[in-house]
Amino acid sequence: MNEILKGKVKTVYDVDGDAEKVKIVFHDKVTAWNGQRAEYPKDKGATCCLISALLFEKLASHGIRSHFLELDGLDSLICKKLSIVPVEVIVRNIAAGSIVKTTNLNEGMLINPPIVEFFLKDDSKNDPLLTPDRVRLMGVNTEPLIERALDINGVLQQLFLLMGIDLVDFKLEFGYDVHGDLYLADELSPDNMRLWKKDTRERFDKDLFRKDEGDIVEAYKYILTKLRQFA
Amino acid sequence: MNEILKGKVKTVYDVDGDAEKVKIVFHDKVTAWNGQRAEYPKDKGATCCLISALLFEKLASHGIRSHFLELDGLDSLICKKLSIVPVEVIVRNIAAGSIVKTTNLNEGMLINPPIVEFFLKDDSKNDPLLTPDRVRLMGVNTEPLIERALDINGVLQQLFLLMGIDLVDFKLEFGYDVHGDLYLADELSPDNMRLWKKDTRERFDKDLFRKDEGDIVEAYKYILTKLRQFA
Repeated sequence: MNEILKGKVKTVYDVDGDAEKVKIVFHDKVTAWNGQRAEYPKDKGATCCLISALLFEKLASHGIRSHFLELDGLDSLICKKLSIVPVEVIVRNIAAGSIVKTTNLNEGMLINPPIVEFFLKDDSKNDPLLTPDRVRLMGVNTEPLIERALDINGVLQQLFLLMGIDLVDFKLEFGYDVHGDLYLADELSPDNMRLWKKDTRERFDKDLFRKDEGDIVEAYKYILTKLRQFA
Repeated sequence: MNEILKGKVKTVYDVDGDAEKVKIVFHDKVTAWNGQRAEYPKDKGATCCLISALLFEKLASHGIRSHFLELDGLDSLICKKLSIVPVEVIVRNIAAGSIVKTTNLNEGMLINPPIVEFFLKDDSKNDPLLTPDRVRLMGVNTEPLIERALDINGVLQQLFLLMGIDLVDFKLEFGYDVHGDLYLADELSPDNMRLWKKDTRERFDKDLFRKDEGDIVEAYKYILTKLRQFA
């Protein structure tokens, strides 16, 4: 398979004979601090892949388009090829992570209405925060991204609430197809979200790895099992 | 004199017998990289002090309030005591400095209309960029700050243009008095601005020190002399 892009935990390949599709393989690997720390836990790739497929399908049932076409085995997705927007889009419902480190806001502060933030997709610059003005100066139209991100948040927040879990924040990537239509891209898994058990704030996300507080695969599998009941 | 606040290049003192005033002393000192590098060039304090006084007076003639009350000798200002807003406000007319390092925008790109950005006033966190949403979540009303910053930009940009100089960007701090009225605070000097000679982009600001490209006091004195002609 012809490799298009090697990410930190996923690799994107061409799909032979179909220029409009890509195959995304999820590896048994988790990284933090911009790749400075890495581990290789068994079943991690498949778990993130299956959760992503399930959430993409859930969004589709609400009329929200993603690049997801079909599952390929346990750890791979066949997806629509897109031109990826060079910003990461973060939705925040509760203050945690970088927003707490770089403001005087306290972890756990409710952010209602939710906010949508943008970060530059550039590991060499450590994915810095962007303002909406900076994103616009880069030639990226923020309006459709914000609207779509908030729609996705509405669906996911409701879904996780059924499971007794607060969707604290999550990262999205978007892309445009050749017709200029916007699609959700990348993955949707606890690698890119913060998920806290209501009240106890027990974590079911990558912070378990960042803070060395538990087995992420076990936590991710719990999320997958719950999602299969409620999605 | 009772010291209220010791900054990197200025110290703020109480004014005996007047609880509504402070004295700000400008030192012969220049720093960069959050104070990691420092030099002590003669006349630097007085030059920044005199430029600040001159620009505050210029703004006052346009009805824009600042904390400046009067000069005290060469290197000190008597100012109105304010409750300082905990964000630094940056106005950008041309891309330079941190915006170039943390986006894919090129140095020298014209930003028209100008943008107003906010940074957290917190050296321990390295003064991180804030989004307007983050500023609002911190309980700071951005609207009056943006409006006032753009008014100031209009006056200063015009003034420097008469001198053949582009006002690339500059930093402002604001404060509220006991009546809730907004005032410009801190200083207004080439320590907090980027000033480029039109066309040649010759620098007359602290980047000379940051990049070790010339004598800042000579450059600042040139600005002071020109301002005396044109302001």
